[in-house]
Amino acid sequence: MKVKVGINGYGTIGKRVAWAVNKQDDMEIVGVTKTRPSYEASTALREGCPLYAAHAEDMENFEKAGIKVQGTLDDLLKKVDVIVDCTPGGTGAKNKELYDKAGVRSIFQGGEDHAMAGISFNALANYHEAWGASSVRVVSCNTTGLVRTLFPLQQAFGIQKVFASLIRRGADPADKKGAALNAIEPSLKLPTHHGPDVKTVIHGLDIQSMAVATPTTLMHLHCVAVELKKEVSEKEVLEVWSSSPRLQLVSGKDGIKNTGQVMELAKDLGRARGDMMDIVIWKDGIRTVGPMLYYYQAVHQESDVVPENVDCIRSMMKLEKDNLVSIERTDKALGLR
Amino acid sequence: MKVKVGINGYGTIGKRVAWAVNKQDDMEIVGVTKTRPSYEASTALREGCPLYAAHAEDMENFEKAGIKVQGTLDDLLKKVDVIVDCTPGGTGAKNKELYDKAGVRSIFQGGEDHAMAGISFNALANYHEAWGASSVRVVSCNTTGLVRTLFPLQQAFGIQKVFASLIRRGADPADKKGAALNAIEPSLKLPTHHGPDVKTVIHGLDIQSMAVATPTTLMHLHCVAVELKKEVSEKEVLEVWSSSPRLQLVSGKDGIKNTGQVMELAKDLGRARGDMMDIVIWKDGIRTVGPMLYYYQAVHQESDVVPENVDCIRSMMKLEKDNLVSIERTDKALGLR
Amino acid sequence: MKVKVGINGYGTIGKRVAWAVNKQDDMEIVGVTKTRPSYEASTALREGCPLYAAHAEDMENFEKAGIKVQGTLDDLLKKVDVIVDCTPGGTGAKNKELYDKAGVRSIFQGGEDHAMAGISFNALANYHEAWGASSVRVVSCNTTGLVRTLFPLQQAFGIQKVFASLIRRGADPADKKGAALNAIEPSLKLPTHHGPDVKTVIHGLDIQSMAVATPTTLMHLHCVAVELKKEVSEKEVLEVWSSSPRLQLVSGKDGIKNTGQVMELAKDLGRARGDMMDIVIWKDGIRTVGPMLYYYQAVHQESDVVPENVDCIRSMMKLEKDNLVSIERTDKALGLR
Amino acid sequence: MKVKVGINGYGTIGKRVAWAVNKQDDMEIVGVTKTRPSYEASTALREGCPLYAAHAEDMENFEKAGIKVQGTLDDLLKKVDVIVDCTPGGTGAKNKELYDKAGVRSIFQGGEDHAMAGISFNALANYHEAWGASSVRVVSCNTTGLVRTLFPLQQAFGIQKVFASLIRRGADPADKKGAALNAIEPSLKLPTHHGPDVKTVIHGLDIQSMAVATPTTLMHLHCVAVELKKEVSEKEVLEVWSSSPRLQLVSGKDGIKNTGQVMELAKDLGRARGDMMDIVIWKDGIRTVGPMLYYYQAVHQESDVVPENVDCIRSMMKLEKDNLVSIERTDKALGLR
Repeated sequence: MKVKVGINGYGTIGKRVAWAVNKQDDMEIVGVTKTRPSYEASTALREGCPLYAAHAEDMENFEKAGIKVQGTLDDLLKKVDVIVDCTPGGTGAKNKELYDKAGVRSIFQGGEDHAMAGISFNALANYHEAWGASSVRVVSCNTTGLVRTLFPLQQAFGIQKVFASLIRRGADPADKKGAALNAIEPSLKLPTHHGPDVKTVIHGLDIQSMAVATPTTLMHLHCVAVELKKEVSEKEVLEVWSSSPRLQLVSGKDGIKNTGQVMELAKDLGRARGDMMDIVIWKDGIRTVGPMLYYYQAVHQESDVVPENVDCIRSMMKLEKDNLVSIERTDKALGLR
Repeated sequence: MKVKVGINGYGTIGKRVAWAVNKQDDMEIVGVTKTRPSYEASTALREGCPLYAAHAEDMENFEKAGIKVQGTLDDLLKKVDVIVDCTPGGTGAKNKELYDKAGVRSIFQGGEDHAMAGISFNALANYHEAWGASSVRVVSCNTTGLVRTLFPLQQAFGIQKVFASLIRRGADPADKKGAALNAIEPSLKLPTHHGPDVKTVIHGLDIQSMAVATPTTLMHLHCVAVELKKEVSEKEVLEVWSSSPRLQLVSGKDGIKNTGQVMELAKDLGRARGDMMDIVIWKDGIRTVGPMLYYYQAVHQESDVVPENVDCIRSMMKLEKDNLVSIERTDKALGLR
Repeated sequence: MKVKVGINGYGTIGKRVAWAVNKQDDMEIVGVTKTRPSYEASTALREGCPLYAAHAEDMENFEKAGIKVQGTLDDLLKKVDVIVDCTPGGTGAKNKELYDKAGVRSIFQGGEDHAMAGISFNALANYHEAWGASSVRVVSCNTTGLVRTLFPLQQAFGIQKVFASLIRRGADPADKKGAALNAIEPSLKLPTHHGPDVKTVIHGLDIQSMAVATPTTLMHLHCVAVELKKEVSEKEVLEVWSSSPRLQLVSGKDGIKNTGQVMELAKDLGRARGDMMDIVIWKDGIRTVGPMLYYYQAVHQESDVVPENVDCIRSMMKLEKDNLVSIERTDKALGLR
Repeated sequence: MKVKVGINGYGTIGKRVAWAVNKQDDMEIVGVTKTRPSYEASTALREGCPLYAAHAEDMENFEKAGIKVQGTLDDLLKKVDVIVDCTPGGTGAKNKELYDKAGVRSIFQGGEDHAMAGISFNALANYHEAWGASSVRVVSCNTTGLVRTLFPLQQAFGIQKVFASLIRRGADPADKKGAALNAIEPSLKLPTHHGPDVKTVIHGLDIQSMAVATPTTLMHLHCVAVELKKEVSEKEVLEVWSSSPRLQLVSGKDGIKNTGQVMELAKDLGRARGDMMDIVIWKDGIRTVGPMLYYYQAVHQESDVVPENVDCIRSMMKLEKDNLVSIERTDKALGLR
């Protein structure tokens, strides 16, 4: 029997996780919530996801719009084994009480604090920590991006120290709020939370980060400087990443020079919604100088955490012991390999 | 037997037309050309399109990159019934000589002059003009957009006069050239070519246009003011468009307020590459005042002409007499209905 | 003795009006208000404008920041003949009660409704309507722009009908809120308020408008289509505008092709803050077709209303009867001629 | 007698250097060149800079446009002691031959290679190296920015190692060419030239850099990580920078959170053209962790090198021995202090 999954918050992340869960053969979506009868409510129905109102008071709006809902979040919680919380960051703690009371396992996203669930998750780095857990947080898009490239380096060569500058996209493509139209804005509170957040998954890593927001919508881009524990060639680094999951190695020489062209590649690869769930590394933008390694990577903020949520369900529900097997199963089902 | 189609220029438009042709059951791609071994060359191979070098001198570059090509454009021309020219605007006349010499029918895009092929095409408005023709030009994305909404109005109510302001996207998402980063730029040469171009398809229409370029990549947006031949209600206008092909009626009330949200809808609809091949009209942005009708429409410059190219092949090759049957067949195959 | 002027709201418009008033020899700033001790509070002091807290409860914040204020708005109102309200749109009605109670004349900006003050103002079109008035509204940046070019046309040739498409900048350069980063957004409520607003100043004009917001910060740009009462040449139109005040005729041929280059010209002209208080018309973007006239104009939303506020004070305070004399006096003092 | 200065290339940098030279009392502009009769040619005349055609073949264009020129570059070279080359990067070597042949001293900008002039210049770090030299290169805007903040740190504390990520603006405000409209683009060739370029001025510094281009026009922004030779507090760092020239310390708490607001501050400070010739450091964006110092700085690419060119002239012409005296003199004349 398939694991029954609910999504609380069918928005940018929620609709993608719903799609990804339904692509697997060991889990299925039994319902999703929305607060308003927007076009995304129609998307849910079109994709075969039973629709629930997030709150009792939202039901009237759906009725007025002529959209039938199956009940409220409370009703949905009675039907699921796991609820994936994709509500806007910061409301997770309050929601967790509801989930705990209903006795369902819960997954939160990176907008919540680590302390709230106590376990932060990345499928490659610490899959086992979510094993059978009742509540887990999948780390944010940026943290996921850093972990996917740093963890293999740590395993292969050892890492002394990391410094990353995060050049963030200002808002998602369909978002109106966000960065200034024509300005670069630094995250003044230093160190930014990104470095410490990596440590919730790769424990004990020495990492610092700075961040700026820029007026673009497509992807974050990281400038990463790593002091390795030994001197290695660029070729050795590439070999490590070539055999690591969920990485896409691209090249400026092939005409992929910026994040716009990366997203074009995602469309050319036939990826659903044009998403790039892999972390993108420029092969011709890697450089080693003594023990130092410099590289650029791009992170698709709307989708890179999606397969991580699937694997997290598998670990929490004890469906598969081997993380690499789970990753491969997820990725094949999503068309990533 | 399927009609054999070649694409000269596998770029933004070319790769989409190739995909669309291969989705039909009465035509197929037998080859596409590229000038360089970029990532789009890999896309062609991945999508099962035999690859040819655009020019003999390009072959060496493909060899160096380890990409096998089947020959040159000249070789491809020997195998096709129709060649769809998707090269950058302005080189069509020179190419036409090659196509004519090879005795193959040719389709050009809106970047070329009307005079070059002598027939300009839109599937709804003048499908029959391409019937059996040896050379036809599919009008540009903006002209296609204007024709799709104006032709049904003309049929239903009659049109006295049209004035359209075109707010153009500055560049395509993966393009580096284009508009200034933070400026609005008017097309100073008045009237702009857009108005006259509509007349190559809807003969005799009284239409004027102005245009500006803006720093955005997703869609063009038109402000259209139409003087109709009779006074009608907004509801009557909506009814006409509701039964016209390749239009998508959206609403700000449903959360679709700008071109970013329109493109999000395209992804939610599961459209290939996230394309919106329909012309988008805002239902709550229509207004009639006496005989005047005002409305906004959005045009996805990368894809709206793609189904038109398919229908154009069908008309030129005399595969289907009824334009509405061809349109329906194309659209079903492409997942547009 | 100079007329004593106060500014309520020393922000984008307020700080410019303060500067402009202090440049005149018949009026002076006796105080400006701010709600917070931001860097613009320092600007006020640097420019010799006595600083007041907008509300009593704001005073503590200034004290904490070590910035001395002279009192509150109530104190300021006791010292002024006229208060210029430059607070964010929509709070004017509430403020008007305070001003009326204090017995001071008041000027509001275009974000307020016409009905609130009952008189809307443009120095060229209806200077006399503000003569001796106790409360007047200076129309918005876009309306000011339309009036400056349409009024001379109406005087010279007569106007049958106007249709304008407004391509709006999404946010001011130092603003964080505003338009989506990469989208075009139509103003769905039609007709937009811009057309009707022109009629509060040029009474009886037949004008309709549509509007879109774009991701740029510098200027609004208008596509204007005017049906004149007689057929005229482009040269005749240019002659009319050449002798009208506060217009800047530019040319794409001279390298001024977009709003970015217009703002560069403003800097090259040595204008304070790099402002372009004139409305900009492209000489090579004018076209007449029969009785129709098409033209583009650009509007610097941060500054074009500034000299209008100065003239409005002069009319309300009965300092000068002839509007053209007032306009010339203002413009010379501001370095506009 | 004043030193006679010519400008070859009256564009973004050239027109600012011309203005700055004319503000000094020991040097003056005797002529500037342009290749075309654009609006900037009018600017030169308006600012009292005699105009010369860059090449003999350009003269006809000026004549046609009715703009009188005083001759060509060759004529200008006969009248100057120093020529400041502000032509587009990469043509300097060819121009140097002309200057050398004419026997005039020459200054080049950062777009040229260090090797071409052999001496690279920053007024604070190595003023003496230009003393009496015949040809000197003023380093680029980004390099100037790094030197202005790093040199005082090196003097005060010693520097072990620097890593800087440069988030570049994609194009200047009035430029049409440049970055993609909605993408982030990494500089793939590592290490980027910025790090090595700092060493041409601060010899022997251990510095590495990475860079990305973003779709914004106002300023570059740097994320800088410095390993100091001793552990210091943030307060000590601030004290060093407070007494260093050409730095502007700002604070997010005062409402200056991004580069748009920095440029607004420049206008509020009454700076000519709204330029920010100082390097901007966020006081609340500084952090020390052990010997590591992290900080953000913003660089106004259009103007920060302008006062450096003035000081460079003074050193080459042996007008003032003490660099701090020259800096103060320049800055006072330009209204920077």
